[in-house]
Amino acid sequence: MAGKTWKTETQFFQLATPRKPFRFASGEVLRDAVVAYEAYGELNAKKDNAILLFHALSGSQHAAGYTSHVEGTGDRWTRDCQEGWWDDFIGPGKALDTSRYFVICANYLGGCYGTTGPTSINPETGKPYGSVFPAVRTSDVVKSQLALLDHLGIKKLHAVIGASVGGLLAINLATMFPERVKIVVPIASGPRTTVLTRLTLFEQVIAIENDPHFHGGNYYEHDKSPEYGLALARMISHKTFVHLDAIERRARADIVQKPTELSWFKVKHNVESYMLHQGKKFVKRFDANTYLRIIEMWLRFDPLGDAGVEDYSGLFARSRKAGHHYLVFSIDSDFCFYPEEQTELVRHLEGANVKSMHITVHSDKGHDSFLLEPELYTPHLVHTLEGRWGKRAERDAVE
Amino acid sequence: MAGKTWKTETQFFQLATPRKPFRFASGEVLRDAVVAYEAYGELNAKKDNAILLFHALSGSQHAAGYTSHVEGTGDRWTRDCQEGWWDDFIGPGKALDTSRYFVICANYLGGCYGTTGPTSINPETGKPYGSVFPAVRTSDVVKSQLALLDHLGIKKLHAVIGASVGGLLAINLATMFPERVKIVVPIASGPRTTVLTRLTLFEQVIAIENDPHFHGGNYYEHDKSPEYGLALARMISHKTFVHLDAIERRARADIVQKPTELSWFKVKHNVESYMLHQGKKFVKRFDANTYLRIIEMWLRFDPLGDAGVEDYSGLFARSRKAGHHYLVFSIDSDFCFYPEEQTELVRHLEGANVKSMHITVHSDKGHDSFLLEPELYTPHLVHTLEGRWGKRAERDAVE
Repeated sequence: MAGKTWKTETQFFQLATPRKPFRFASGEVLRDAVVAYEAYGELNAKKDNAILLFHALSGSQHAAGYTSHVEGTGDRWTRDCQEGWWDDFIGPGKALDTSRYFVICANYLGGCYGTTGPTSINPETGKPYGSVFPAVRTSDVVKSQLALLDHLGIKKLHAVIGASVGGLLAINLATMFPERVKIVVPIASGPRTTVLTRLTLFEQVIAIENDPHFHGGNYYEHDKSPEYGLALARMISHKTFVHLDAIERRARADIVQKPTELSWFKVKHNVESYMLHQGKKFVKRFDANTYLRIIEMWLRFDPLGDAGVEDYSGLFARSRKAGHHYLVFSIDSDFCFYPEEQTELVRHLEGANVKSMHITVHSDKGHDSFLLEPELYTPHLVHTLEGRWGKRAERDAVE
Repeated sequence: MAGKTWKTETQFFQLATPRKPFRFASGEVLRDAVVAYEAYGELNAKKDNAILLFHALSGSQHAAGYTSHVEGTGDRWTRDCQEGWWDDFIGPGKALDTSRYFVICANYLGGCYGTTGPTSINPETGKPYGSVFPAVRTSDVVKSQLALLDHLGIKKLHAVIGASVGGLLAINLATMFPERVKIVVPIASGPRTTVLTRLTLFEQVIAIENDPHFHGGNYYEHDKSPEYGLALARMISHKTFVHLDAIERRARADIVQKPTELSWFKVKHNVESYMLHQGKKFVKRFDANTYLRIIEMWLRFDPLGDAGVEDYSGLFARSRKAGHHYLVFSIDSDFCFYPEEQTELVRHLEGANVKSMHITVHSDKGHDSFLLEPELYTPHLVHTLEGRWGKRAERDAVE
């Protein structure tokens, strides 16, 4: 619990004002919006040592250290949120070495951890946005975070890093705005939304939509929120995040007391009660409307359309011209973004002659490995961030 | 549409009467119950040419021919139900050759296609059973169908065949009552409920339980039934039945008209509208309480407990002593019962020195291959049912 001694705090950047509204890809606008972010380390004088880190589906801006509370998050900032989700990766001497780099992580637009989202007060009504909060696209999140970089005076990132959904955002940023970054690190991610992922995400949409307490997204003024729907959505996704063997092991360690009774079904098996517990725990710290915004963003991920190109060859030609280096990580036991998806990404990169390195880590933890096993990622992250790989490649070419 | 010319009909066997109640594994009893079944071909004088076929999750007793209607099924006997689900496998000269064999298929106890289930009228109240219909175990279904065999005078089956959940029942029958059968054919099935299957099934339970119209199972007297919950359950399972590439192909062929709007989410992608269509189509022909009974039966599948043995070695020792022959089919692209599950089954059979043959068919259709591609199964089914494989094995041993 080293993180507990390192106090961190969330800051807020004013993204939109009545005079400078933020325009979404859908055409809708917000006239008042903030982006919640945290930053670790020091920005150097040349402002060229910044790393932007995109969090995953249920993550937040709080990547490292200990943040005891965040304004505007209500009861959602539970103990599970207080420790940085990548604390083992960020700090002096760690993979993202804060004695060298300035690391920034921001909550997604539409989020529920401080950035303006469906739970925020709509100034036009004085009530939470709910259903009228605009649909969010990856390009909206990317643009909101580039505006933050502008505010901080950062013209070009040393690197952009994202795992899972965050990897989609990293690719989106690098190919929409190639001049804004040097190194791109998608971890356990992919170049597109596959059919299996689409099905799994769509099930989650229906799970929330089917909840009688969803009210089309306008549930904040009601006694109840769509907790069961959100819990089911979490259960559906949880099985793709955690390796099945690990679910079995963790479930076995769970103390199952008496059978839980639903309205008819009796939960008797420890795997069932474990999943139910995961679902229930999650709804305490997350908002269903935000969940839907991110799920929909993932379903509609369209890097080709956003970059105005026809195919992946055209997409990554933009990275080649900008001289990007890609470091792509696969997790061999990943059931969320399967290793084949990163292989496809790397095939596209190689096809477009982009400098890339592809590393598969072997883990029994599944997709969540990127949160849990820093030692599997740190050496290659350090190597690439320090630019040693680039130098080596150039030396080879000369010899 | 050859089946349309072959008129078939569902018959009813009185399983329970007030004087001879049926006792479930749970201890609960029914004092009035029927089993709906169909039979094809002629039972010979020695009554030793019978084949019992177990249907899958959403199947029925109507395996072959054309049955225009079934008493007691209300609106559920839709056009999708009228053609036998294994019509290409059953008939003169087909895999289950009705000029040689007497083929029986019966609807599961708790079913909604004619066998007494939650939709049936409870004589004690004059209303449908709903929530008070007992929980069903595979052993209950097996016993209900053995009672039918007793009624027909069949002491020993030539073979028991089951695909998917039906395969679990075939194994259950063969190991609980080894003296009742000679040949056992589990197709795309397995020896136990895996963690992944358990998670997928449990999600389906929650999907139905979360539906505001479920009312704990007592929805028959209400205007609405838990259609959205059942549709979501079907969507969750459908993706394990149909190969993902096939879902993508079928979805592409679908004519997507204007986007369907849920309460907030807009369905825009053809894969999404295809799945929604699958879900909606299914709820017209199936009952949510029956669905839950079968899902729960699958979750609680316990062949070891039912046979009173400690392990699979003990379980299949019962098959060895009875001289069973097993023909086990795997489908290489199966996402519902993965090929590894049949490999595990065969390892157990071999470990117990049971005569077994394991065939993997290569298909791009996924789990549903067993419904769609008779040519992949017929030669081996014929070979095994005719006892030729047994003879060959014995000859080899002599040579």
